[in-house]
Amino acid sequence: MTALPSVLDHIDTECDAAISRLFGLLRIKSISTDPAYKADCREAAEWLVNDLNSIGFKASIRDTKGHPMVVAHHDGPAEAPHVLFYGHYDVQPVDPLELWTHDPFDPAVRESEDGHQIITGRGASDDKGQLMTFVEACRAYKAVDGTLPCKVTIFFEGEEESGSPSMQAFLEANAEELRADFALVCDTSQRDATTPAICVAMRGLVEEEVTIHAANRDLHSGIYGGAAANPIRVLAKILADMHDEDGRVTVPAFYDGVEETPSQILHSWEVLGETAESFLGPIGLSVPSGEKNRSILELVWARPTAEFNGFSGGYTGKGFKTVIPAQAFARVSFRLVHKQDPAKIRAAFRKFVEERLPEDCRVEFEQYDGSPAVQLPYDAPFLAAARSALADEWAKAPIMRAVGGSIPVVGDFKTHLGMDSLLVGFALSDDRIHSPNEKYNVASFHKGQRSWARILDALARK
Amino acid sequence: MTALPSVLDHIDTECDAAISRLFGLLRIKSISTDPAYKADCREAAEWLVNDLNSIGFKASIRDTKGHPMVVAHHDGPAEAPHVLFYGHYDVQPVDPLELWTHDPFDPAVRESEDGHQIITGRGASDDKGQLMTFVEACRAYKAVDGTLPCKVTIFFEGEEESGSPSMQAFLEANAEELRADFALVCDTSQRDATTPAICVAMRGLVEEEVTIHAANRDLHSGIYGGAAANPIRVLAKILADMHDEDGRVTVPAFYDGVEETPSQILHSWEVLGETAESFLGPIGLSVPSGEKNRSILELVWARPTAEFNGFSGGYTGKGFKTVIPAQAFARVSFRLVHKQDPAKIRAAFRKFVEERLPEDCRVEFEQYDGSPAVQLPYDAPFLAAARSALADEWAKAPIMRAVGGSIPVVGDFKTHLGMDSLLVGFALSDDRIHSPNEKYNVASFHKGQRSWARILDALARK
Repeated sequence: MTALPSVLDHIDTECDAAISRLFGLLRIKSISTDPAYKADCREAAEWLVNDLNSIGFKASIRDTKGHPMVVAHHDGPAEAPHVLFYGHYDVQPVDPLELWTHDPFDPAVRESEDGHQIITGRGASDDKGQLMTFVEACRAYKAVDGTLPCKVTIFFEGEEESGSPSMQAFLEANAEELRADFALVCDTSQRDATTPAICVAMRGLVEEEVTIHAANRDLHSGIYGGAAANPIRVLAKILADMHDEDGRVTVPAFYDGVEETPSQILHSWEVLGETAESFLGPIGLSVPSGEKNRSILELVWARPTAEFNGFSGGYTGKGFKTVIPAQAFARVSFRLVHKQDPAKIRAAFRKFVEERLPEDCRVEFEQYDGSPAVQLPYDAPFLAAARSALADEWAKAPIMRAVGGSIPVVGDFKTHLGMDSLLVGFALSDDRIHSPNEKYNVASFHKGQRSWARILDALARK
Repeated sequence: MTALPSVLDHIDTECDAAISRLFGLLRIKSISTDPAYKADCREAAEWLVNDLNSIGFKASIRDTKGHPMVVAHHDGPAEAPHVLFYGHYDVQPVDPLELWTHDPFDPAVRESEDGHQIITGRGASDDKGQLMTFVEACRAYKAVDGTLPCKVTIFFEGEEESGSPSMQAFLEANAEELRADFALVCDTSQRDATTPAICVAMRGLVEEEVTIHAANRDLHSGIYGGAAANPIRVLAKILADMHDEDGRVTVPAFYDGVEETPSQILHSWEVLGETAESFLGPIGLSVPSGEKNRSILELVWARPTAEFNGFSGGYTGKGFKTVIPAQAFARVSFRLVHKQDPAKIRAAFRKFVEERLPEDCRVEFEQYDGSPAVQLPYDAPFLAAARSALADEWAKAPIMRAVGGSIPVVGDFKTHLGMDSLLVGFALSDDRIHSPNEKYNVASFHKGQRSWARILDALARK
């Protein structure tokens, strides 16, 4: 017999008090991108240290070159796993402020237009409300049982919304202290209000800028048209060559390391009912642009891409100039899956371009980010435990989803600490994160706490 | 026996006086693009009216919405042709002034670094020096013979460097007065200092802007990459499709109306010794980008092109954003030759794009300039007369060259007055027109006058 039933009862009883505590954190204007809020960021970190110490963690502020980290430790049974819980206390800026119906830093529980109880305010969902679901689950365990079912390290950062500039150095410098059996990350969404989700894969990313140089100056197309190489034409041809008629990327060896998604996973995505029309309709499109004969969710969750994110060359101002430009550039990015190797793909892309370069043109590459995909093994025990716990709470199996973009800290945990991450979050797609009138459903906050209580219990017993 | 030998002698004797007169015109700051010089432009027009009246023309200023035109008439023998001579009295701005070694409006005869006598100053070559070669030839005829060998109308504009905004309306309103058997235009270059040239063709132009619209907003490539249509990819594919492996334009019916250049003309270009290396070397290139198996001069003088003059889409600022843009645009221009029809080519291009448009993308076109090519009949009698006259003066047959770009007034003369134009000019490629330290060789000015005297004589006797 575990403490879980009592813990869940305690969470139910304490719900209003937990919301009041969350309000305390939401009132702090911890906007990390704006230097004017530097002291507020520190205040949020201190608030968390105090709260964690009050429930028996050994918590402390850790200074960085930017905003401080919070690290807190709590022991657990020797036979249970050691988990690192991650969240971030910084929030997005609030402008345009005039679009908020209430003060973003004066949180309240209100009723939404569709009749839900919602917590309003900047950070209510992203990520203060989400990180407090875990803290409240711990608080309930401590209140009921005096201890936690697992050894827990809590790690909060204050720079997630500014690109986490201090993260890698901090992980390297504190690897021994932070390393756990795996990480729990609470910064993602559910499928919908009644369907929990575990994120089991995130696409990686390779970003390249390619500039084609032709003549040593811009040319008059009357004088030189038909004779001089045009870098826009050269670049357009190279980019056009990068996909075949079936939407596959033609860069050699691009698909090395790409695995077919297990059929039961594909099936679990199919039953979600997402179609090209439902996915693309809201953005005004209807026809998937990627590989043929793949479902829309497989395309964005489990298939790699080559995308063109920017292109410029020649005269782009008002009016028309008949110039043949000296150069043109494109920004190209690849979303990676499974075991695709960012360095190999970058090199293959460069070779692909160089092979298509006219004799008297020159190419220049600028390297931007590169990170491999994250793919959890579908049969990992901690995944099974979390699935079962979430299924118990929501009376519905969680979907094993992927995200098309990257969550850099997950890659950092893998790279610097050798840890996989379990991504469970309770946000909803209508939470308006990063936008005016951010909210978090009271039910998300409440059932999020219960979900973490169950997950900790399941992990301890696995 | 014609007056020609005496006229040529007179020109030789009067050379210094002609230079002094030119200086009078060069001192006037007739910069048409800058409203600060409006009165100077009028002063230049008045200077020309006075000078033409002084040699027996009936000259007058004609006001326009912009700078005034100058029109002057002189009768000639009934059996001789009636010619319209065109030039422009306005000049380019002089900045950057600090790069001039002398005051641009204080003309002088100086010795160049390579030992030539040169007339320095803004407009010395473009176009005051050139237009005065014709005026001085007329002056010499009047001095020696009391009349001119042809009926001559002189037409000077003051807005050539500002795009000739008043030209078309003026030609329409004064068509009867300005119409002649053909025009003489003195605003082009020789092949080199010892080789005269007649420009017998100018490429036409069609300018189009094409915008591809995909999603109804910019998208995150993590979330939508592999699903949403990318307008940069769509546009790159369309542009890449526009040329085949042999450098030919693939737009259907694009080559309708394109004629093969007569082999004797091609041969006359070949003997000029221009190679891909000599033409492209100075701009840092070496391999012609146009149709295969055509000489470099044929490519730029007698073949049509499709060029990309501008392209923009997505994020082009500093850094990298993984956006899939909602739209991307390209500026496309076609240089036309012979009888290619601008309207048909514009329509064919639009159809070409529309046929390649993915189902859920949308295209928008913006129409810019369109003008047909100018191609003189190689066997026109006035051309034969001018060739023979120039060969006599230079002891070398003139080359029958083309220009890759357009000279709009030549198209306007054809469209509004039904006149062909004989383009003969004495500028050299090192005259630095539009740049600091513009100059015109004294020899250009002197032999230019003699050339026009011979051409008028030859035209009268043809």
